[in-house]
Amino acid sequence: MTDKNDVASTFSSVKSRRDFLRTSAVSVIAGGALAACGKAGAAPSAPVSAAPSAPVKVPSEREAADAMDAMHEAGIKAFPAKSKGKGNQLLQPVMDGHTKVYKLTARKIQWETLAGQSVTAYAYNDQVPGPQIRVKEGDKVRIVLKNELPESTVIHFHGLELPNAQDGVPFITQPPVKPGETYTYEFVVPNAGSHMYHSHHNSATQVSLGMLGAFIVEPRNPQPIEHADVDHVMILNDGAHGYTFNGKSFPATEPVVAKLGQKLRIRFMNEGMMIHPMHLHGMHMTVIAKDGWPQPAPWKCDTLNIAPGERWDVIVNCNNKGTWAFHCHILQHAESDHGMFGMVTALIVA
Amino acid sequence: MTDKNDVASTFSSVKSRRDFLRTSAVSVIAGGALAACGKAGAAPSAPVSAAPSAPVKVPSEREAADAMDAMHEAGIKAFPAKSKGKGNQLLQPVMDGHTKVYKLTARKIQWETLAGQSVTAYAYNDQVPGPQIRVKEGDKVRIVLKNELPESTVIHFHGLELPNAQDGVPFITQPPVKPGETYTYEFVVPNAGSHMYHSHHNSATQVSLGMLGAFIVEPRNPQPIEHADVDHVMILNDGAHGYTFNGKSFPATEPVVAKLGQKLRIRFMNEGMMIHPMHLHGMHMTVIAKDGWPQPAPWKCDTLNIAPGERWDVIVNCNNKGTWAFHCHILQHAESDHGMFGMVTALIVA
Amino acid sequence: MTDKNDVASTFSSVKSRRDFLRTSAVSVIAGGALAACGKAGAAPSAPVSAAPSAPVKVPSEREAADAMDAMHEAGIKAFPAKSKGKGNQLLQPVMDGHTKVYKLTARKIQWETLAGQSVTAYAYNDQVPGPQIRVKEGDKVRIVLKNELPESTVIHFHGLELPNAQDGVPFITQPPVKPGETYTYEFVVPNAGSHMYHSHHNSATQVSLGMLGAFIVEPRNPQPIEHADVDHVMILNDGAHGYTFNGKSFPATEPVVAKLGQKLRIRFMNEGMMIHPMHLHGMHMTVIAKDGWPQPAPWKCDTLNIAPGERWDVIVNCNNKGTWAFHCHILQHAESDHGMFGMVTALIVA
Repeated sequence: MTDKNDVASTFSSVKSRRDFLRTSAVSVIAGGALAACGKAGAAPSAPVSAAPSAPVKVPSEREAADAMDAMHEAGIKAFPAKSKGKGNQLLQPVMDGHTKVYKLTARKIQWETLAGQSVTAYAYNDQVPGPQIRVKEGDKVRIVLKNELPESTVIHFHGLELPNAQDGVPFITQPPVKPGETYTYEFVVPNAGSHMYHSHHNSATQVSLGMLGAFIVEPRNPQPIEHADVDHVMILNDGAHGYTFNGKSFPATEPVVAKLGQKLRIRFMNEGMMIHPMHLHGMHMTVIAKDGWPQPAPWKCDTLNIAPGERWDVIVNCNNKGTWAFHCHILQHAESDHGMFGMVTALIVA
Repeated sequence: MTDKNDVASTFSSVKSRRDFLRTSAVSVIAGGALAACGKAGAAPSAPVSAAPSAPVKVPSEREAADAMDAMHEAGIKAFPAKSKGKGNQLLQPVMDGHTKVYKLTARKIQWETLAGQSVTAYAYNDQVPGPQIRVKEGDKVRIVLKNELPESTVIHFHGLELPNAQDGVPFITQPPVKPGETYTYEFVVPNAGSHMYHSHHNSATQVSLGMLGAFIVEPRNPQPIEHADVDHVMILNDGAHGYTFNGKSFPATEPVVAKLGQKLRIRFMNEGMMIHPMHLHGMHMTVIAKDGWPQPAPWKCDTLNIAPGERWDVIVNCNNKGTWAFHCHILQHAESDHGMFGMVTALIVA
Repeated sequence: MTDKNDVASTFSSVKSRRDFLRTSAVSVIAGGALAACGKAGAAPSAPVSAAPSAPVKVPSEREAADAMDAMHEAGIKAFPAKSKGKGNQLLQPVMDGHTKVYKLTARKIQWETLAGQSVTAYAYNDQVPGPQIRVKEGDKVRIVLKNELPESTVIHFHGLELPNAQDGVPFITQPPVKPGETYTYEFVVPNAGSHMYHSHHNSATQVSLGMLGAFIVEPRNPQPIEHADVDHVMILNDGAHGYTFNGKSFPATEPVVAKLGQKLRIRFMNEGMMIHPMHLHGMHMTVIAKDGWPQPAPWKCDTLNIAPGERWDVIVNCNNKGTWAFHCHILQHAESDHGMFGMVTALIVA
């Protein structure tokens, strides 16, 4: 994995970026526009120079364009922006004999989708998405859910073909887990693939607030096409926290990083309420699995429509050097007149 | 087919359900919350105990959770709920020589999507969806449409590759059928598959109100993969009648019932205006046909995105015993804080 | 290609159309309804006969139906309606040695989506969609963008696997092109298929306003299945200009015309913000490519869901004579109680 400094320097190497940012009059306009617009675009502030006694003037077309561009540039320049909290961190199990034990505590927290932009979240282990569980087909696992939320909850293992009693649907397969209670799921992992775990109680609210995570099951006998040097999970959401990848909005989204010549596997998972057609620039994606099941014949695309509840696995041959925009192609989920926001990241092939 | 009593008892066998339902204070809160919220969630009322002179008290976190859970439980417990009217009933033809004659009368009626929740509907033969027409490739059929609606209408046979004159598009292939008039379609059934019939006049309104039904064409030479013990048509709609499967909202939706080891064929049909990614718990679906045409290679999933106008045929190997949630994964179409509603049913493998 | 007169006469041959249009009282009602509704349905006006001193009367059910039908008929009868401006015209390159040079000037114009319905557009070479660029795999091309818009812009070649510097993302691969400036892209065309070019700056606004066009790359070695007698590009949009095919709304949309027995290739491209499941009457579509990449096995359908940013290529065997409705099956994008509008055209097999 490349560290943050490398990523930042890759971004900074964009040619002559600083040439485009004018100061004085232009940035006064930019600052004024941002102040007037408040938080509308969720774009970071452009640098503002002090000009307290400047005479009032109507901006020219060029000045207005420069002011808009400065906001756009500021967003790009800030990427990848720091923010508090990181979701989808790999959770190491505690072994109980041959059983892998994972403890998940559901709690109400404040979560930064962007530095300075805190939202109320329901989080597993204080992460949005919850920590990543990664096991092998046939593993014996135990999930211990402690509910510290102000309401009942349960966990449904979306995609796993479990015995009915472990399916996590209140009043059908189990009682809801009340505030303060602990509930234990235990099973042998049945089927490989990119799956998810999430609440199945008051779920339109709870999943929107963060009660979700990746449950990756590695196959006992992987197919050759599955081989990848980099394995990236990308969970899409669009509810109470805005448009996010792995709990963050651009420019606080995490870049996907690979070396030239590497194979990258992306596991798209949609935990939102809307479709998101994900578009990668510069290289195509080869679709190898749907909901964890291999496609009978892999197929290529550059824009893959991910519907709520779906998971799609793709392979990218990272054979085109550069920093490539990677975003939802419902453009309103990715860009406003204040610049890019929401469902935008970059694939950096270095 | 399993009868209603069996289904109900399968549901009632959920362990210790009654343990979760508290009475007194809790159910007062539940009742109060329901009263305050009116019909918002379309969830059935939880049982309310009389407590006329109880002192005012702020509910604790646990009491509030119990109150919410009681509403959720009441919905599950009511499933499958009775309601007046059943759509998609197989329509037996009258034979005129070798021609199968189907009579469809379009009428404005009141329709229950849920007991006590009546909506204005445009219905064929007083059913929403209209009666199911099921024929064989090469059959000679006559459809006699009698229009008793307050406006003109026509029938388009969506998916059938008919001669142009039978295509049912007003002012292109025929005049609109005026109120009081009768119009006859007649053709040899050209292509097999899961098709639909619906209005093609003022259609955004008329189809939303119920002018739709399944037109299933069985092939002369079925493929082995098509063999199924249970054949279930599931028509999705999302217009004037709310979120429905076959004209009903949860808990009045019909369960899908199969015996352990049986093969189930589901024919999804979307007559609405929105996508609905259908998610089945516990078992995957093998996709065998799109719009009535075989897929070149069947493929597996657990969440299948159904767009307006599309039909998808899937096979489920019912090898996992239990009652399995089966719902649209746009969670706002399936659950509110009052419990499940709308596009929810269950696959019961007994 | 069939000329407009042939098309119009095909449409006019609908049997006994004039029989359905009543005059006097009926058309008074029709006219009145239209006047009251203003521009709501975007349907053309029905003919109105003068009846200044007619006594006030409540229309009967039949009269109301006739009035509605007259509006529907007027829309159909007007198709294909003339309107000012035609987008997606093939752009001939100027040769500079072995390099094909295409000049695109971005300008703010008024654009007719329908006769008398002008909208503000950002257009390349005064066309919406911009002119069609059609080249061959391996061609050397130069695109010269002149920006006469009131804001900065760039061009992203959506689907082409270009060197990073030619990818058209401001502040990542290039500076924004300011008002009045000219910017040149130059590259060897890397991969075949149905691609697009569009703005990637303030794109939710600019693409919605018309900064988009088709970039078709013919393969060096076409597959047999790609052979087609008619090649039709259909760009879908749903933003500031309403629901459009190639920049026009029904009845000003262009019909697709083929002779009986011909093979028709349709290249669907979605430049909007919503899905559009395109439904063809009378014949199925065989899907051969996604985003310019061949599907591993062609598959058949009659309703194809096109998501934003996606391109789908299909082949239609035009073996069913007649005029066939061809529309988005989100019915609200295609029909109101005033008649068909927006995303509707016809495939005319003559």
